[in-house]
Formats: sequence, C-alpha cells, structure tokens
Amino acid sequence: MFNLIWILYMNQKVKLGKRELKRAALKDKLINSALNRINEHMLLGLRARDITAEAGCSLGALYTVFDDLDALILQVNSITLQQLGDHLAASVKNDATPTQNLVALAKAYATFAWDNFNQWSALFEHRMPKGGSVPDWHIQEHSILFENISRPVISLMPKASAQEVTTITRTLFASTHGIVSVGIHERLASIPRDELDAQLEHFVRTFVKGLGCN
Amino acid sequence: MFNLIWILYMNQKVKLGKRELKRAALKDKLINSALNRINEHMLLGLRARDITAEAGCSLGALYTVFDDLDALILQVNSITLQQLGDHLAASVKNDATPTQNLVALAKAYATFAWDNFNQWSALFEHRMPKGGSVPDWHIQEHSILFENISRPVISLMPKASAQEVTTITRTLFASTHGIVSVGIHERLASIPRDELDAQLEHFVRTFVKGLGCN
Repeated sequence: MFNLIWILYMNQKVKLGKRELKRAALKDKLINSALNRINEHMLLGLRARDITAEAGCSLGALYTVFDDLDALILQVNSITLQQLGDHLAASVKNDATPTQNLVALAKAYATFAWDNFNQWSALFEHRMPKGGSVPDWHIQEHSILFENISRPVISLMPKASAQEVTTITRTLFASTHGIVSVGIHERLASIPRDELDAQLEHFVRTFVKGLGCN
Repeated sequence: MFNLIWILYMNQKVKLGKRELKRAALKDKLINSALNRINEHMLLGLRARDITAEAGCSLGALYTVFDDLDALILQVNSITLQQLGDHLAASVKNDATPTQNLVALAKAYATFAWDNFNQWSALFEHRMPKGGSVPDWHIQEHSILFENISRPVISLMPKASAQEVTTITRTLFASTHGIVSVGIHERLASIPRDELDAQLEHFVRTFVKGLGCN
C-alpha cells in the first residue's frame, strides 16, 4: 500500500546507493509498524520500543531515519489523510444533486471513522511536543478534508464569494466531524451506525434548507 | 474550589477518623495536582510520578486512593464538566429569544474551549485502558453538555416529540463541538476568536432557519 522504495525506484532522477536503499526500506518498515500499532492500540501510549520491536530493528535505528516519534506519527497521519481523501472522493456521484452529494460525503466520513477509528482519532489527537510545530507540508495535506465539499457548495451557491464558499465548506466539514465524533464517543452514549447516518442526513438537509438553496 | 474534606465535614452523617481524614486530604491534593499537570502539559504524556511529585507524596500513595491513573483523570474530567456546565448556564438569559440563547450557548462553549484548552481536550481525548470501561456515574455527568441546549430547543419546537428534541439537541451540541474543535485545531489552520464566533452565529441561525422555526 505504501512502498517508498518502489516510488524511489520509479523516479528516474534518483540514483540510490546501497545505503540509501537500506535506509528507505527501514523507513518504510517503521511507518507500517507505527500504522499497525496505532490501529491496534491507539495513539495514547504509543511507544517507540514497541514500534521497533514490531519492525524488527533496534530502538536506535528509528532515530537514524526520524528525528523523533512525532515525525513518524506525522507520516502515519499523512497516509490516513490520503486514504480518507480517496474514500470521500469515491462517495461523490456526477449524476447526483449537490445536496445528495453533501449527504453522501457526510455518511462516507462517518463510515471511515467507524471502520478506522484509531487511525482517524490519531489525526485529531496527535499534538507536537512543547515548542515543536507541525510542518507546513502536513498542514497543507489537511485541505483534503475540505476539497470534496467545496464543489457541491459552489453548485448550490453559484453567486457566493470565495470567502462565503470557504466558510460554508468549513462549517459543513466541522459540523459533520463533530456529529460523528460525538456519535461515536463512548462517554456521550454512542449511537448505532444507522441512527448516526439518519442524524447526518437530517443535519445536512436542514442546514442546506437554512441556506435557502435546496 | 474542590475540597473533599470540607464536603465530608459538612455531611453530618459521616464521622471521619484520623485515617479517613488523611486519606481524603491526599485524594484532594492528588486531584488538584492532576488538574494542574493537565492544564500545563496536556493529557498526552501525563505521568503518575509527576503528579505525586507535585502533590508531595510517594508514587505508591497514589495507588492507595485511586485504582489507577485513569480513575484520577476521571475525577479531573468530572470537575471540568461541572465548570463547563456552570459556564454554559451563565450564558443563558431569560429575556432572550430561544435562537439568541442557542447562539449564546455556542459562543460560551467556544470561550470555555479557548480559555481551558487542555482541560477541555482531556474530556474528549481520554480513553480507558484496553478492557476497562467508563463508569456509569461519569457517563451520566456528560448529560450536562446537552441540558442547557434542550430548553431553547423545546421553546422553538413546542410540538416536537421528546425524541425529536433529543436529536436536535444532540445535533446542535455536536455541530458546535465540531466547529469549535476544527476552529481551534492547529493543523486545520485555526481561525481567530472573533471569526469563530461569527461562524458559530451564522451556523446556529442557518440551522434554526432550516428547521423552519426562526
């Protein structure tokens, strides 16, 4: 699913020596181990030694390819964003109305969160250590969460300014994210999947109606 | 702010011996230390030894009053819920319209999250260790998040069934929670406080309009 060596091989501009190939293979293995550990045990309590044990390398080896554990977690979150983006894009239909597509996107978001709960939680729960900041490339990647929503919003509101489209898109994403988070959260009395779907559909249709463009 | 000994003293039914008083004082001190540590350093990386160091007791002492670190975190989250509930209740005005009160509640939620970010995050990010489940008394406490919202919803929709009121209340809370979470989240390009307030106001008014009862 994620093979750095293959990507590097395919890139004709990169000529890799034996050492670089080994390093790329190690990086790849560590990312996959971290992804597995997060899926099985969540982000909280993730330890470098468990990741390296699963990858079959020494603890020190991790720090020859990543500055710290957080740099490795960012790579896992990057994969999650890509998977989530693909999943959302696949829910959009060309022959559906904008409102139908917004409903489909909200439900697809819920499906991804249910089926990949730990990976999805890590996206929002990971924090950089004190003093560190998230690199720009990773912040940029999060725009994938808004991309699919803005197209139906523009279809709904062809006269809206770019600023209005951004605000409505952000509101729709954030509300959906909140409804899904609260719907799944144990302490808030999580609800069954079909009820969450019904709640999301009711929410999106009500909000679009409130915008005056359904 | 939180004095267990005082509460026990006031309760005439409880006769405390010297040992029980000492135990209650220790419990109180540990809860306050954990609250401080979470406020300063967040939940991620919270360690029992730092809490006991701040409380000035041995590591072992913690486990004479709490089963584990999670039981202590639940006590902190319980205080946070109480503070949040008080803050939300104070934003509601008797002479305001239901929509105005819903807008005020959403903005009050955002204010609490901005001003108590680490404490507020701990409420949603804490997970019980594998195999453990959140005790019922703590799940019950979370209903404080919905209580203030349901009253204006009932005023808006006097003919709605209890089930409909519950769903709308839950949707309003969850959407607000999502808009605030995403608005504050570093990776999603956090927005200024006044813009978040404007977004919340626009959202609540649009949703209420969509319900057909503004």
